[in-house]
Amino acid sequence: MENVVIVRYSEISLKGNNRIVFEKKLIDNIKDCLKKNNVKYEKIDRLRGRIIIFAEQELNCLKYVFGISSFSHALVIEPEIKEIEKTVSKLIENKKFRSFRVSAQRLNKNFPLTSPEIEREIGSFVCKKFNKKVSLKDFDLEIGIEILDYAYVFIKKIKGFNGLPVGVEGKVVSLIEDENSLLASLLMMKRGCFVIPVSLKKTNIGLIRKFAYGFEPELIIIKNIKELDEISKENNAKAVVVGQTLESFKELELKAMVLRPLIGLDKKIIKEFSNYFS
Amino acid sequence: MENVVIVRYSEISLKGNNRIVFEKKLIDNIKDCLKKNNVKYEKIDRLRGRIIIFAEQELNCLKYVFGISSFSHALVIEPEIKEIEKTVSKLIENKKFRSFRVSAQRLNKNFPLTSPEIEREIGSFVCKKFNKKVSLKDFDLEIGIEILDYAYVFIKKIKGFNGLPVGVEGKVVSLIEDENSLLASLLMMKRGCFVIPVSLKKTNIGLIRKFAYGFEPELIIIKNIKELDEISKENNAKAVVVGQTLESFKELELKAMVLRPLIGLDKKIIKEFSNYFS
Repeated sequence: MENVVIVRYSEISLKGNNRIVFEKKLIDNIKDCLKKNNVKYEKIDRLRGRIIIFAEQELNCLKYVFGISSFSHALVIEPEIKEIEKTVSKLIENKKFRSFRVSAQRLNKNFPLTSPEIEREIGSFVCKKFNKKVSLKDFDLEIGIEILDYAYVFIKKIKGFNGLPVGVEGKVVSLIEDENSLLASLLMMKRGCFVIPVSLKKTNIGLIRKFAYGFEPELIIIKNIKELDEISKENNAKAVVVGQTLESFKELELKAMVLRPLIGLDKKIIKEFSNYFS
Repeated sequence: MENVVIVRYSEISLKGNNRIVFEKKLIDNIKDCLKKNNVKYEKIDRLRGRIIIFAEQELNCLKYVFGISSFSHALVIEPEIKEIEKTVSKLIENKKFRSFRVSAQRLNKNFPLTSPEIEREIGSFVCKKFNKKVSLKDFDLEIGIEILDYAYVFIKKIKGFNGLPVGVEGKVVSLIEDENSLLASLLMMKRGCFVIPVSLKKTNIGLIRKFAYGFEPELIIIKNIKELDEISKENNAKAVVVGQTLESFKELELKAMVLRPLIGLDKKIIKEFSNYFS
């Protein structure tokens, strides 16, 4: 029995060859995240659409790695139903709950029971042993079981921000002028872009740093907007990103392409996105 | 007692001089909507942050006029509490409901009762006369009362799409290539832009027409992308809008500025927006 973290990622752009690029980049960014947060880990495995991190510590920092849809601190055991029962007992014996459900996913089809069969088996085991009620909709506790090479048992799924791992798309230079520019940068990072933050004055880029795994954002101070062209060229960046909305719209005399991710959004939606990331 | 429709609009961009431009354009677009849907109306008034349409018919078409936050079919009466009681009786006598609430808004401060006082007064009147229960949270029926020049009584608020009235911002040429382009066009319309739809082939622009009040979208067929520059110039358009995401990104060799409203959005959010409009 070992402690691991099981990481799930969005399947949305995992078509064809991109899948490997996506997964490798995601693992790189996870390693960067663990390093920056001083987390010791034994190894990282990739199997059947999951990334498994062998670590004892709580890894809440993973929440801010774009590309991750969710993760769980889990116990790994032999894929046998008796072992699963023992582990479930161990995990829930000190938990207070009245109703529960079991959610199983058999990703390795060699396991003899199907997902609904695992759910029924473990469900009735917990009912009898702990005298609790199953409730599929209105439960206090969810017991998660995923069968990969081994069985992984957990009771909590922490949500990530989804999106693509930072770095699978090209680099962009991001002109930081206000809060909207930070949001525009985050949206581009979530779509897989490295962001090079640039500003006319000293500015707090904490919100970018919060999600900056796989790259090191260092604010570049410029004297005039035209310098954006040089910086784009030097860094081989695809475009310059700005936080302009239609209300704050202005033309920028640049050779580089200018992207305005907020141009079609209402203030209300911009506020919702900002709250979401902060 | 007269039938009217009371229209509410987003207050969000009603600062300073823009307010009048916004309101006039919204009224123009409402008139266009009524004309296109063969609705006869007596007159349209604008007062205290509301637009009042004197019409007998149901006006569901208003739902698709950008800038409207909500509207209600209401009865207009003298602003006296006895009159309001009579009108409320008339409106609810054939309705089936167990619980109700009263929501009052006194926009004209000359009326002697405050909003909470109106709510209490009418609430207790309905309780006694109809033997029903008040419930502020879990109600079957909401009785709305707004006091402007007269009193307006209604039992239904129909939600609009908010945004700005089409036309308060400049014109844009929109390259229609796929569903995403239609969505990009709608987002720009909702931010107040006239859209000139252009395509390389015959395409259904029904989704644009659904919200096209205040202008007549006619699809222009072009033979090559370069023609977008001419069309922009001829129409004095500020930019060319495309539906590109980072996945479908391509550079366009145009002199005109290119806007990509979907560039920072996830597929999931794009899908949500599409569902929202269709």
